[in-house]
Amino acid sequence: MITKYTSGSPIDTEAVVQSFPPRKITEFPFKNALGGGKFTFGFEMEDGDIVYGLGEAPRGINKRGWIYESYCSDDPFHTETKSSLYAAHNFIVLSGSKTFGIYIDFPSRIRWDLGYTSQNSAEITVGGTDFDIYLIEGGSPREIVREFRAAIGQSYIPPLWAFGYQQSRWSYHNAQAVDRVIEGYNKADIPLDCVYLDIDYMDSYKDFTINSEAFPDFEAYVREKRAQGIHLIPIIDAGVKQEDGYSVFEEGREKGYFCKKADGSDFEAGVWPGMCRFPDFLNPEVRRWFGEKYKTLTDMGIDGFWNDMNEPALFYSADGLKKALDKASSLRGDNLDLGKFFNLKDVFLGLSNSQEDYSSIYHNIGGEMVNHQRVHNIYGANMTKAAGEYFEKAFGREKILMFSRASFIGAHRSSGIWFGDNHSWWSHILLNLKMLPAANMCGFLYCGADLGGFNENSTRDLVLRFLALGVFTPLMRNHSALGTRDQEGYSFEKPEDFRDIILVRYRLIPYLYSTFRRASETNDMIFRPLSFDYPDDAVARECETQLMLGEECMIAPVCEQNAGGRTVYLPEDMTFVKLSGENVEKQELPKGLHYVSVALNEVPLFIKKGKKIPLCKPAMRTEELDFDELTFI
Amino acid sequence: MITKYTSGSPIDTEAVVQSFPPRKITEFPFKNALGGGKFTFGFEMEDGDIVYGLGEAPRGINKRGWIYESYCSDDPFHTETKSSLYAAHNFIVLSGSKTFGIYIDFPSRIRWDLGYTSQNSAEITVGGTDFDIYLIEGGSPREIVREFRAAIGQSYIPPLWAFGYQQSRWSYHNAQAVDRVIEGYNKADIPLDCVYLDIDYMDSYKDFTINSEAFPDFEAYVREKRAQGIHLIPIIDAGVKQEDGYSVFEEGREKGYFCKKADGSDFEAGVWPGMCRFPDFLNPEVRRWFGEKYKTLTDMGIDGFWNDMNEPALFYSADGLKKALDKASSLRGDNLDLGKFFNLKDVFLGLSNSQEDYSSIYHNIGGEMVNHQRVHNIYGANMTKAAGEYFEKAFGREKILMFSRASFIGAHRSSGIWFGDNHSWWSHILLNLKMLPAANMCGFLYCGADLGGFNENSTRDLVLRFLALGVFTPLMRNHSALGTRDQEGYSFEKPEDFRDIILVRYRLIPYLYSTFRRASETNDMIFRPLSFDYPDDAVARECETQLMLGEECMIAPVCEQNAGGRTVYLPEDMTFVKLSGENVEKQELPKGLHYVSVALNEVPLFIKKGKKIPLCKPAMRTEELDFDELTFI
Repeated sequence: MITKYTSGSPIDTEAVVQSFPPRKITEFPFKNALGGGKFTFGFEMEDGDIVYGLGEAPRGINKRGWIYESYCSDDPFHTETKSSLYAAHNFIVLSGSKTFGIYIDFPSRIRWDLGYTSQNSAEITVGGTDFDIYLIEGGSPREIVREFRAAIGQSYIPPLWAFGYQQSRWSYHNAQAVDRVIEGYNKADIPLDCVYLDIDYMDSYKDFTINSEAFPDFEAYVREKRAQGIHLIPIIDAGVKQEDGYSVFEEGREKGYFCKKADGSDFEAGVWPGMCRFPDFLNPEVRRWFGEKYKTLTDMGIDGFWNDMNEPALFYSADGLKKALDKASSLRGDNLDLGKFFNLKDVFLGLSNSQEDYSSIYHNIGGEMVNHQRVHNIYGANMTKAAGEYFEKAFGREKILMFSRASFIGAHRSSGIWFGDNHSWWSHILLNLKMLPAANMCGFLYCGADLGGFNENSTRDLVLRFLALGVFTPLMRNHSALGTRDQEGYSFEKPEDFRDIILVRYRLIPYLYSTFRRASETNDMIFRPLSFDYPDDAVARECETQLMLGEECMIAPVCEQNAGGRTVYLPEDMTFVKLSGENVEKQELPKGLHYVSVALNEVPLFIKKGKKIPLCKPAMRTEELDFDELTFI
Repeated sequence: MITKYTSGSPIDTEAVVQSFPPRKITEFPFKNALGGGKFTFGFEMEDGDIVYGLGEAPRGINKRGWIYESYCSDDPFHTETKSSLYAAHNFIVLSGSKTFGIYIDFPSRIRWDLGYTSQNSAEITVGGTDFDIYLIEGGSPREIVREFRAAIGQSYIPPLWAFGYQQSRWSYHNAQAVDRVIEGYNKADIPLDCVYLDIDYMDSYKDFTINSEAFPDFEAYVREKRAQGIHLIPIIDAGVKQEDGYSVFEEGREKGYFCKKADGSDFEAGVWPGMCRFPDFLNPEVRRWFGEKYKTLTDMGIDGFWNDMNEPALFYSADGLKKALDKASSLRGDNLDLGKFFNLKDVFLGLSNSQEDYSSIYHNIGGEMVNHQRVHNIYGANMTKAAGEYFEKAFGREKILMFSRASFIGAHRSSGIWFGDNHSWWSHILLNLKMLPAANMCGFLYCGADLGGFNENSTRDLVLRFLALGVFTPLMRNHSALGTRDQEGYSFEKPEDFRDIILVRYRLIPYLYSTFRRASETNDMIFRPLSFDYPDDAVARECETQLMLGEECMIAPVCEQNAGGRTVYLPEDMTFVKLSGENVEKQELPKGLHYVSVALNEVPLFIKKGKKIPLCKPAMRTEELDFDELTFI
């Protein structure tokens, strides 16, 4: 049962699509305090209680023991002590002595102290007085999730080919580089469906333009790749380059479509193209306008996009940079003491994504100038909905692949997400795993992390182990940063090991795709913590390294370097399956702890007793898969 | 058997104390290449081979699969992808298809590609042509370690009280703050032996001075605390404040004791006190001089020290800062493009510990001007040996507690180490564990990490779980950074849980101290990877979360938040012991995998069949412990 409590006059975030009669916030059945521009409420927890949720967020499946903040942040250092990543997913479920879900529909900051200040107390602070809170009671955590998911509407389903293997890098900067990737995969006999175009495909990083030196006839090139079974997926950034003669900029300026400063002039900040202006996605007219811009690319045969830098990321504002340079200049000749030195260093470090800059931005919401801080968390989501709305109108559903970096619940109906700029850290295999059920709870089914790790150098074994988890994630994309080691499957010794892993993905697509569709259609999760399925099993309850997948499976990736396998906990008797290329090796294992050997070219999978899953024959492209000829394991 | 191979005319690092007849490097029995100012050699590895060693270094017990660099670095972000930390410990052991040890006695950069470029190949590059390599062959990894350890001389043994529990923070900045800590522990009935004085006890961060506002009569205060059973442990930094009238500075300047620049003037750089000069610890006369300065503090009753910032850490040099400010100034008014912006940001970020600054430093070695880069890795070790030599002469052995941040093999005879400025990350419990056997291999027995984590905010459960590992580490010190949450045992809810953990330490001191002494006297390790003891057990061989302790025990800390226990692998039948306060709970467990419950106030320990370890009665200070009244478990 969902009960909605309303305080003040909430800004419409479009997160919830079902309608609920609002009760007054004064009836909210938790100890709480409203005032001073915020709303605080809390609840007590028993020792074994678990808090699930918060979607794309740092730390564990069980979120207890930390302070999180809902504030979309461009921060590539996904360490344990961060409080925010790129998304704001304001849904949690407490499970244990009491079981309920809470969704806070509010587009600005929320602070979630989930047992940090006091181990058995949660204190949640909504940074404003205009919001809705939905309390979901009755049933198991999974039932609570389903009820919530029904309220927020059906999750985005991408085209089938989006389940193929995808290769990305910042950057395959021209047609020759893209061709080398495709050729590398073809030669190594490794399947591939998509190659990504990072920022360098554009002319000077201008959205909806093509660098014609890099791609002399882009449309012909896109169609040529499509004929080879390959989809090219260009990136779209939130900032629009400020450049006379650039039509998107000129139109936006003319029509007053960019975000403003308090004095009514356009807000400007440096991002990849240099100085940019920022479309006001809070304005429905701007959303329509920007969404239709994607047509430039779909007209050339493009059918997939990733939206980036839409928290929005700001490298610096003109005002901030001027202040920093003036400060440095004024200190010349001084014998700086330590305080002055660190202060100066902090000024330069603090230029990017500065709170001062965010606070200086204004949106036009229904004719009213609204400060950005009040709606920060829906900026990126609204960029993505802009495109999604256009795609649905122009092409219908399930035709265009799209995922976004910044997100907010509601965007899950239009798009997937990727988990942002992770690192080539072994610990990020598990961070990826832990985010999956949390993202599913919040409606984001099409998701995944940068396999192999985006930042810093990866190793062959890390990429293989990361991919062996990625085999199961709807978005299976290998992505790496400028200046790092090549991490395409064919770039390492013995590419046949990569082939063995990626072939498994293609064999599983019928199963993964049908599981995905069913989850979307029934508002269910694809990935669940073991505790959802085995609530009375003490070991399963605290398992943070394995997940349930669909109704049939459990996954348990190897996530330690130099390990020839891992310890796994089976909450019931299961079949341990090792998949490698076309090979399938099975072993019945009883409930309990087991050490299982898993070679670098093997994908471990556990199938519940009495269940079977289909495998198709592998192919080099999703479009070559035969869904009718299945074997069952 | 140890064979020494010499190339060129090595600088004497004082690492090795036994003498070996040198062979020519041309006889070195690995594929190698000497030339172009460097020496490169390599060997092949089989799939299951393990590389142990490198002491204080990032990543696993098994070092395979990464590139490490021997280069003492002040870097507080101990993430997986770092190549260097504060120490340069150039000893590895390969174990598997072949088993041998290699020690490279060389005070500058060494690059260890241990299966990064190619998974089964090691390639090691010595950054110079004047060095000794010791090849240790024959016997097990443990025997190879013992032979190496005999060659480098007996490890430092601190006074017994250094095994007591220690509390630190940056900073307990005056006598009242220190008293509050002691009172906090006393009131909570939690044992305590040491309180640390971080940089603020000094007058303007000047070594060997006292801030007389903070400590009006320091000597009386030190003696008063000693009477309460508490040792105060002040920090000593490498840099000497440049200030007229400050005797250490004036003496050093007068006698030419500071490091130089190429033009013969003193090298200057900013550290905590502002502009500093750096004692030339490579000069034996300076070492004597600086070592004797510690007398200022020992005369006041101080009997323990920690040496810091001795990589050396440099926040900025006068020259570097001037260049940065000039650059910023020249860019004023420009509409910066992205390249210029990031370049400018990098200039400010790169001011600290810059290679340009290190390259501009010169040492006086036997009258010759030697560039710092040639001897970088022994600078901090020689600072610590300066003090160690003085202490031994003035007080005899085992009288003064000392440990250092930077280190090099050889300093292990004079001092312990701590593992530097870690973070309040759950993953750093395991990083601490993984460093212990590697540090032991290199002679550093008295060591430990900042329990609870130094940087960023900790949580109550993290501090408890970290301490439960720290119960076994010779240095058991809780330390946290400026601006972070208080993390003393009494600062959290239910301090009795902290008491239960720390009491266990005191009960174990007879066992831990005798194990420590025996390891020092027999050149053995206190902590060993499971694979050292169970080389034919495949699961034990890759275990990275448990250690053997002495001849009797295995340890396996809980290292995941919200976990009520952990999975542990027993390579043979063992007794699982849970220690909490004065309680001892025992359970016989057979060889194999087990999930064991461990509450937050319990210390898990595993005792081998047929072995027993002593426990004494707990006390509030080590000096109150009765070593004669022991019970055995």
